[in-house]
Amino acid sequence: MKLVATETLSRLTSLHCSACGTKYSAFDLQRTSTCCTLPLVADYDLHEPLGRDAIDQADSSMWRYGALLPLLHEENKVTLGEGMTPMLNLPRLAARHELSSLLLKDEGQNPTGSFKARGLSMAISKAKELGVDGCIIPTAGNAGVAMAAYCARAGLKAVVVMPRHTPQAFKEECYWYGAEVELVDGLISDCGARVRQRNANGALLDISTLKEPYRLEGKKTMGYEIAEQLNWQLPDVLLYPAGGGTGLIGIWKAFQEMKALGWLAPHHALPRMVAVQAKNCCPLLETYAGRQPNCHSYQGSPTLANGLAVPHPLGEAMMLRVLRESRGTVVSVSEEDMLAGMRDLGQQEGLFVAPEGAAVWMAARQLLATGWLQRNESVLLLNTGSGQKYMDNVAGRAMR
Amino acid sequence: MKLVATETLSRLTSLHCSACGTKYSAFDLQRTSTCCTLPLVADYDLHEPLGRDAIDQADSSMWRYGALLPLLHEENKVTLGEGMTPMLNLPRLAARHELSSLLLKDEGQNPTGSFKARGLSMAISKAKELGVDGCIIPTAGNAGVAMAAYCARAGLKAVVVMPRHTPQAFKEECYWYGAEVELVDGLISDCGARVRQRNANGALLDISTLKEPYRLEGKKTMGYEIAEQLNWQLPDVLLYPAGGGTGLIGIWKAFQEMKALGWLAPHHALPRMVAVQAKNCCPLLETYAGRQPNCHSYQGSPTLANGLAVPHPLGEAMMLRVLRESRGTVVSVSEEDMLAGMRDLGQQEGLFVAPEGAAVWMAARQLLATGWLQRNESVLLLNTGSGQKYMDNVAGRAMR
Ligand SMILES: Cc1ncc(COP(=O)(O)O)c(C=O)c1O
Ligand SMILES: Cc1ncc(COP(=O)(O)O)c(C=O)c1O
Ligand SMILES: [Zn+2]
Ligand SMILES: [Zn+2]
Repeated sequence: MKLVATETLSRLTSLHCSACGTKYSAFDLQRTSTCCTLPLVADYDLHEPLGRDAIDQADSSMWRYGALLPLLHEENKVTLGEGMTPMLNLPRLAARHELSSLLLKDEGQNPTGSFKARGLSMAISKAKELGVDGCIIPTAGNAGVAMAAYCARAGLKAVVVMPRHTPQAFKEECYWYGAEVELVDGLISDCGARVRQRNANGALLDISTLKEPYRLEGKKTMGYEIAEQLNWQLPDVLLYPAGGGTGLIGIWKAFQEMKALGWLAPHHALPRMVAVQAKNCCPLLETYAGRQPNCHSYQGSPTLANGLAVPHPLGEAMMLRVLRESRGTVVSVSEEDMLAGMRDLGQQEGLFVAPEGAAVWMAARQLLATGWLQRNESVLLLNTGSGQKYMDNVAGRAMR
Repeated sequence: MKLVATETLSRLTSLHCSACGTKYSAFDLQRTSTCCTLPLVADYDLHEPLGRDAIDQADSSMWRYGALLPLLHEENKVTLGEGMTPMLNLPRLAARHELSSLLLKDEGQNPTGSFKARGLSMAISKAKELGVDGCIIPTAGNAGVAMAAYCARAGLKAVVVMPRHTPQAFKEECYWYGAEVELVDGLISDCGARVRQRNANGALLDISTLKEPYRLEGKKTMGYEIAEQLNWQLPDVLLYPAGGGTGLIGIWKAFQEMKALGWLAPHHALPRMVAVQAKNCCPLLETYAGRQPNCHSYQGSPTLANGLAVPHPLGEAMMLRVLRESRGTVVSVSEEDMLAGMRDLGQQEGLFVAPEGAAVWMAARQLLATGWLQRNESVLLLNTGSGQKYMDNVAGRAMR
């Protein structure tokens, strides 16, 4: 279906290839770029003035930034109230570690219990707008649950392909949404191969990370919210658990857009972005450290933080660019440290976080120890999910 | 500790006995009334003008209604970002059942996954303000988890007493917050007896439903949000899963306060309030129907909706008053119907709700069938929790 952007608030103009910049229409159904077979990225008209008063203050979801989102027609919005998650102070952990400012944005309070709700709300809304009947996704867990929920809400067929070793709660929740679940031996990359095989005829839209342009647009709303919630003063350092990378790339994209719009002060330094990975699967760290040319032949193994078990992220080059441009770094965290981080955040701050979120806190502790992070710098942790669905793997590990 | 209310935004003036009206100081630590041994209720100065612009629009949590909340000093606030949960349209279910307006407020998106976060955030904030060192609670599950989280965040000791048959996820999450958990054979009433025995010396503050006045104040924020989110036009009928009753009583209290403040149009009809119970434990229905004088000797049995397994609610008279004043009613729902409601909300609307929330939807269907509810009336369902922690009991029941 060809869309016509009449009477829309959206400033969406086009898409471009993330590698070579070739332009693509944003009004047709697109997947990756045909030039480089790499992710497409949405462009907006940021020259026509747009003030912060364009934010719809009456909307306490991510949709408050409507002008900077790709949805053209309100009636296609598929929402469960995602976004505008709390920005919390962590005073007790800050005091223990003598940090002057430690914040955590709690994405576990999203619909379906993770930040994946943002990307999938956006992607499924656009799928509906573009006339798609059904969607398929390879997933480490959270993205599949979110896709199943938003497809149910939109009345679209949903097929979720996940590793067999994923905790039961992820599978079970998909069933409640009426999705079909297929289990695969291996990691998300093996699920991706199965999706390509199963959907060879293209009957379903493949919602794999960065294989369609709109999950990224949903994820970027975290960046807008961070700025708005901190009164347009960004932290010195931002730590994010990076698997496929849409969160990291999306937040950085939002910062760039806000710079272009003049929503951030002209000389405002942007945060140093830290990608946090699991020791069991850290392809980005290996490439960043120069131990491999890229992730193509990286071998990863499962981790408690299943969202980080992504051995071959399609967005590797885009993530590395974010790290370079922001003068950031990559840190990897062990399984034991993730459990220790869950205990820290639970017992000291009353947060039951996903292992991915716990990894981020332990990464901050590592960077403090090495001096890369200074005690007087302001630090923002992104907790991407609730601990709830990980129970199979973490039960009985709460006590020291 | 005696509090002095200098430099506070709070309009709190006093407490009164819910049965006889006797006044009590709101600036000392209070439990139930000493006159009638019944719940105490907070009073505010609602005569001095206070406009809707007193709502702090920059605060997307329940604390935006600060003037009408009992906390005196900001530094005592113990928050995880609770409240301002989404108000969602249910267009697919509405169409199926030919309802003109069907809304659901999703309290499952609160910290710790249920509306209990509101009451416990408030109660623990006040406990901190009043100088308490530790808290104890008898719970069906969700309230205990929330108390454990807020106590961890406040640095207070927490003891949670719950039925042994409660799904494992509730217990496990308490451990992550560092709380002590004691398991009791029986229902919440048996846990209450154990709390009284264990805390006979009063060393800990007993946070039982309506045995301290502030959980109710947290819960009432649902009523304020409903009005604000619906642009000060309340629905015709509101359905709520009632166990201990703080939600039902709190929402009604908020409506009364808003009337007194002039925030609702003078002739605005308030919603008919429906208390939804489980067939396995429906003391309120039995009293309402005249089959018992009150709930004192009611015998209940466990239900999937553990929050509704409250055989002897201390607030029974207060709940009955809400039903009478609002021209509401009580409905009970079977275990099989709760599962059917979970499937309806999951497959049609992408919501994985607690059995308590599913019961509310099935109660609406019952009331439609009997004609008590008309298809052209606007209906609001309160889903009080996420389905996640009920997995032990509902796994494998997703498919028809
Ligand atoms: C909880 C959680 N955190 C982080 C990630 C990684 O996300 P991204 O693809 O944005 O790097 C995932 C992905 O599954 C996840 O579920
Ligand atoms: C999910 C859920 N819904 C409803 C209730 C009943 O709440 P109330 O005490 O406000 O009647 C509970 C109480 O445990 C609960 O956990
Ligand atoms: Zn290209
Ligand atoms: Zn009295």
